Amino acid sequence: MRVSQLVEQSGVPLATVKYYLREGLLMQGEATSATRAEYGPQHLRRLVLIKALSGLGLPIPRVREILSLIDEPRGPLVETLGAALSALPPYPEAGGDHPRARAVLEKLGQSVDPDYPAVAQLEHALAAAEAVGMPLTDDRLQVYGEHIAAVARAELADMPQGSVEDAIEYAVLGTAIYEPVLAAMRRLAHQDLATKMFPEGEPE
Amino acid sequence: MRVSQLVEQSGVPLATVKYYLREGLLMQGEATSATRAEYGPQHLRRLVLIKALSGLGLPIPRVREILSLIDEPRGPLVETLGAALSALPPYPEAGGDHPRARAVLEKLGQSVDPDYPAVAQLEHALAAAEAVGMPLTDDRLQVYGEHIAAVARAELADMPQGSVEDAIEYAVLGTAIYEPVLAAMRRLAHQDLATKMFPEGEPE
Repeated sequence: MRVSQLVEQSGVPLATVKYYLREGLLMQGEATSATRAEYGPQHLRRLVLIKALSGLGLPIPRVREILSLIDEPRGPLVETLGAALSALPPYPEAGGDHPRARAVLEKLGQSVDPDYPAVAQLEHALAAAEAVGMPLTDDRLQVYGEHIAAVARAELADMPQGSVEDAIEYAVLGTAIYEPVLAAMRRLAHQDLATKMFPEGEPE
Repeated sequence: MRVSQLVEQSGVPLATVKYYLREGLLMQGEATSATRAEYGPQHLRRLVLIKALSGLGLPIPRVREILSLIDEPRGPLVETLGAALSALPPYPEAGGDHPRARAVLEKLGQSVDPDYPAVAQLEHALAAAEAVGMPLTDDRLQVYGEHIAAVARAELADMPQGSVEDAIEYAVLGTAIYEPVLAAMRRLAHQDLATKMFPEGEPE
């Protein structure tokens, strides 16, 4: 297809397509004349992925990281996935001992890779809860651990494994895109339950 | 206690305490001379709450909204809580029909108050998932609904109900402060499960 069709089918403006080509995020088409190039379905797919990743607020270098992992996977799939997922925000400062996160993961019997940014993310989140006087209790941790594991299992069970590209796309987009769905559902579940618990409850 | 003790015990700098006093977020102490005032535990508690809410990134007008609901609850507790929780980010644009969110809540058998910002938040999250070609399937929705409801139930069961102030503090801080804990735990559960599922998995 021509670049105009690429624009039409992806919904990405021509100037942006050209920018992605210049930046090397989108691979060049096959030149058919001095001023024309032909693009295939792999270009369209790549373009749609770049659009989706940019839409998540990822800066270009992080988009580039994910694309390069698709093009050159790094050893075992689980490592490639871990590296790709590390490109997602938030970007907590590296380093530190993460004592709270390690304690939580130990209690849950989960493996800990301290280089994985989500460990620092969990540490910060637990420290913030402590700072407002609401540390995570062991009982709460057990409830969170059990139900979050069930959510994660369902998500992983749906991961396509036909190719590394399929798996990375699903893992990166799914991790980012369902997080706000879950957050909104939690807030709405609170409201629903509170309405049932305090149908006529007057404040004291 | 004197203002210096308020500063010491809250960890809020003097200039910030004075700012909160000027803005009327912190109630005035009892004047004991032309230049001195005496503060009590209610001042300390309020100051710590303002600090926590500011720490969540809430702008001052939103902090004020929550404090005014504590001081003057609005009818039934569930309504006061709903109003206080609406002061939390994100702040999606109001209006619109929220067709995706309504369909999801109907399938889950949950009540829908379209004025509640989490409905718009869910609508945007579902639209974003659709836009990247990963709409929420009915199976996934059932898994999410079941486990998020269990999380929300445990959270509500722990809500102190001694006073409206206790309830609002817990609901607002807990909603905001445990959200990133759950998000980080989900990412770590993915990693843990992937490590178990693909122990030696090489990419194809």
